[in-house]
Amino acid sequence: MNKIELISEGKTKRLWSTEDPQMAAIEFVDDAMMYHGKHKLYFSGKGKLCNGINALIMTELAENNVPTHFVSKLDESSSLVYKAEMIPIEVVVYNYTSESMAKRLGLVKGQKLKFPVLEFCYKNDRLDDPVINEYHALAMGLCTAEEMSAMCYQASRINKVLGDYLRRANMVLADFKVEFGRVNGRLLVADEITPNTARMWDQSTLKHICKDGERNAEHEYAEILARLEAAKL
Amino acid sequence: MNKIELISEGKTKRLWSTEDPQMAAIEFVDDAMMYHGKHKLYFSGKGKLCNGINALIMTELAENNVPTHFVSKLDESSSLVYKAEMIPIEVVVYNYTSESMAKRLGLVKGQKLKFPVLEFCYKNDRLDDPVINEYHALAMGLCTAEEMSAMCYQASRINKVLGDYLRRANMVLADFKVEFGRVNGRLLVADEITPNTARMWDQSTLKHICKDGERNAEHEYAEILARLEAAKL
Repeated sequence: MNKIELISEGKTKRLWSTEDPQMAAIEFVDDAMMYHGKHKLYFSGKGKLCNGINALIMTELAENNVPTHFVSKLDESSSLVYKAEMIPIEVVVYNYTSESMAKRLGLVKGQKLKFPVLEFCYKNDRLDDPVINEYHALAMGLCTAEEMSAMCYQASRINKVLGDYLRRANMVLADFKVEFGRVNGRLLVADEITPNTARMWDQSTLKHICKDGERNAEHEYAEILARLEAAKL
Repeated sequence: MNKIELISEGKTKRLWSTEDPQMAAIEFVDDAMMYHGKHKLYFSGKGKLCNGINALIMTELAENNVPTHFVSKLDESSSLVYKAEMIPIEVVVYNYTSESMAKRLGLVKGQKLKFPVLEFCYKNDRLDDPVINEYHALAMGLCTAEEMSAMCYQASRINKVLGDYLRRANMVLADFKVEFGRVNGRLLVADEITPNTARMWDQSTLKHICKDGERNAEHEYAEILARLEAAKL
């Protein structure tokens, strides 16, 4: 399968058509706009590392019966996926408080939550991706009640499966964001899960993986890939 | 039963102790700070009208098996209630979009929602009552999972029962806010439901009840009480 034509360009990847009209290729780029475009991160080789991390995680999810759009790696920085009709909702799962959540709710930042917290955003650039809840999603017709249940269930399943995988890789899953899409009426994970969209911490420090005490994105992404690979052996 | 000592003073009412340590008296005042203290509304006789409206609504709820803290009217502007251990969550139910919801989510203001929307706020003056969802409430220990289910169920029941009552009174329930408390381990509605906390519209105009085409709070509150009384006959 080959990348033929550029369909769209997102914040961390490009979407390409392929010979198969039901399939697309996602190409991870080195240049990523993160946190709703508020933070820019670039280093050479980032696309390849993310493609590798994403492939390991998607495979782990599939092995644990979480359906995803992922088919296989295509080349160093691209993967083949099923084309999905996207649901315009970001689901975020927190195991530890983020800085903004802590500030908003009067909690301490970086603290373990008593229960995982799911949050939902309506994906809409013009409105700056406003926070919604399940009731808004249904009233606005963004998804059906069945799809909302499936998204909550699958997000919780991913939290468990990915949390277990990271633990075996000496890491902790602080939080992650995921989006879903419909393929032939079936709800699938239709998004990357990489350090672009998830906080994967070192298990001993409960902080981002550092190099000589300093945060270094290139080292962090490479180390996450190495640890995830080692845990698969 | 008599009002003995002032326990606390809220935005629309005062709470008094009574001879019975399990009971309190709520006194509706003429002077109300509404919408999280952002809007002030005063007219002479407002407390009496709210006490009357609240008594009719609480009685209607009790008759339809929605448990409330309300016992009986005590005097013109006061009612006897069970003392409750309050859950610090405001539950708001919308049947029509509000101005702020419409702006935030890109909807049209004053439009009927496809399904009722429940929203939750964490009652905390210092944090300006931030919006939360069910997961935050559980993770923060604000209530148990069982209490959260009960609050969602009772809020939906109130929406149905009060919506039906208002329809018989030629009105439409656009939205309302309600709080819950524990009395001997049981979850009860422990809040007023009045035009201070609910938008009750005229059924024919789908707008606030007006006088000579102008909004007039004194006329509106009196008319709501008169219509609710007439619908009880």
